[in-house]
Amino acid sequence: MALVSRYQVTVEWGDCDPAGIIFYPRYFEIFDASTAALFERALGMTKYKSLAAFDFAGYPLVDTRAKFMKPTRFGDDVVVESTITFGTSSFGIQHRLTLNGELCVECTEKRVWVARDPADPGRIRARPVPEAVRAKFT
Amino acid sequence: MALVSRYQVTVEWGDCDPAGIIFYPRYFEIFDASTAALFERALGMTKYKSLAAFDFAGYPLVDTRAKFMKPTRFGDDVVVESTITFGTSSFGIQHRLTLNGELCVECTEKRVWVARDPADPGRIRARPVPEAVRAKFT
Amino acid sequence: MALVSRYQVTVEWGDCDPAGIIFYPRYFEIFDASTAALFERALGMTKYKSLAAFDFAGYPLVDTRAKFMKPTRFGDDVVVESTITFGTSSFGIQHRLTLNGELCVECTEKRVWVARDPADPGRIRARPVPEAVRAKFT
Amino acid sequence: MALVSRYQVTVEWGDCDPAGIIFYPRYFEIFDASTAALFERALGMTKYKSLAAFDFAGYPLVDTRAKFMKPTRFGDDVVVESTITFGTSSFGIQHRLTLNGELCVECTEKRVWVARDPADPGRIRARPVPEAVRAKFT
Repeated sequence: MALVSRYQVTVEWGDCDPAGIIFYPRYFEIFDASTAALFERALGMTKYKSLAAFDFAGYPLVDTRAKFMKPTRFGDDVVVESTITFGTSSFGIQHRLTLNGELCVECTEKRVWVARDPADPGRIRARPVPEAVRAKFT
Repeated sequence: MALVSRYQVTVEWGDCDPAGIIFYPRYFEIFDASTAALFERALGMTKYKSLAAFDFAGYPLVDTRAKFMKPTRFGDDVVVESTITFGTSSFGIQHRLTLNGELCVECTEKRVWVARDPADPGRIRARPVPEAVRAKFT
Repeated sequence: MALVSRYQVTVEWGDCDPAGIIFYPRYFEIFDASTAALFERALGMTKYKSLAAFDFAGYPLVDTRAKFMKPTRFGDDVVVESTITFGTSSFGIQHRLTLNGELCVECTEKRVWVARDPADPGRIRARPVPEAVRAKFT
Repeated sequence: MALVSRYQVTVEWGDCDPAGIIFYPRYFEIFDASTAALFERALGMTKYKSLAAFDFAGYPLVDTRAKFMKPTRFGDDVVVESTITFGTSSFGIQHRLTLNGELCVECTEKRVWVARDPADPGRIRARPVPEAVRAKFT
């Protein structure tokens, strides 16, 4: 099961560092937003609404790898193409960030679906991705 | 050539997301700060002063990989141990982030040394790490 | 002289805190991006290009005041209307952030135009806003 | 009732923008962390533990005003002195951020104490500051 979504965002002045290029942790904020956009498109509702609809608490990362080929800077309108692949109890996301069609960053993530621990609502626990969610991606 | 440094920081409320755990891009901000602390310790000056002293513009990433074993949350005092290994024209950093001695995140980075392009000061170019810098790490 | 611009952005998961609402410093990031969008629209070029075209280094704040009437959260598409008013050596910006037409945050800023100090390029100095810039806002 | 607390932090590379100075929304992150440190000191527990102990969900802002006198930059170890004053159903915080004893930023905040809405746990509501909390500040 795979689905591709396309997310566009402008790199802002405040995303950049004294070298004048994007401060790389901002790419991970962009990748997380692109993942949310992919789920929002598939599920047909915002993440806020899906938390209640599917009784979960997010999909934190367990692993990520990123390669930075070309820097971007404030004023750049970048595009992220994100692809999802489901495993048994986790899922993988691939992000390709481009500027004017040129590949700038490539990122692979593994994420897990989590719900609040009934015994301690401040804690979270991994859960299988609900079938009702997976079904939306086919 | 390798050097280990130790960096301590508190995870703040604003670093955490609606699941109540740290929003993972904040870990990369922490790793970047730990890298700066390692250089500051080796070079004996802040990054601000070293930019002028060594005529460079930063050490952006070309590659990073992180594994997230255990979440941290606001109020947690985490410790990062960062180790540097020099290559020919780049260097690697390994970060181990722990909470109360327990490993929470492991990260490997490859970075390059860059200087402003004399032909276009808004642009940067990779440069070999100066021998005067490498020498400080032995 | 005044000009209004309209900037739209989605509040993201990572912009929100463990209370589930936007972490308020993110509003100031949004206001800074809205200010950049206003200048980009008036000058007809990105901030990156305008730095070279007008030989300046940004327009940092000297004063800001914000009132928060209603919280916003991840998935909310908020709109900022920003109005600029020029003084002699500084300018004011007013931001009105709304969600579905309802006012959530109101902010007033005073900013100055700065350029790099020729004697020390790591430092910046206030400068009058160039007439060529002001003229674009009429 | 007033209590002063002192919070120290280093301005990092990633906190700074292409002008080489701190991106001003980072100051508000620092002020929020200093507020948390003040409460942690008074209550004798982290914010994470106090959420459970006092059954609340945070203390979001309703109003803030900041004046920026002098920029700071990466490598600067800044100090924030925060003072709290309780009103009937809200409280004020004053922050003075200094570098080497010199005042760089002054900020005044008004905050409210909130708890989750029992009818909709995704929502929050203002509540009087518990007497048990106020008492810790005298």
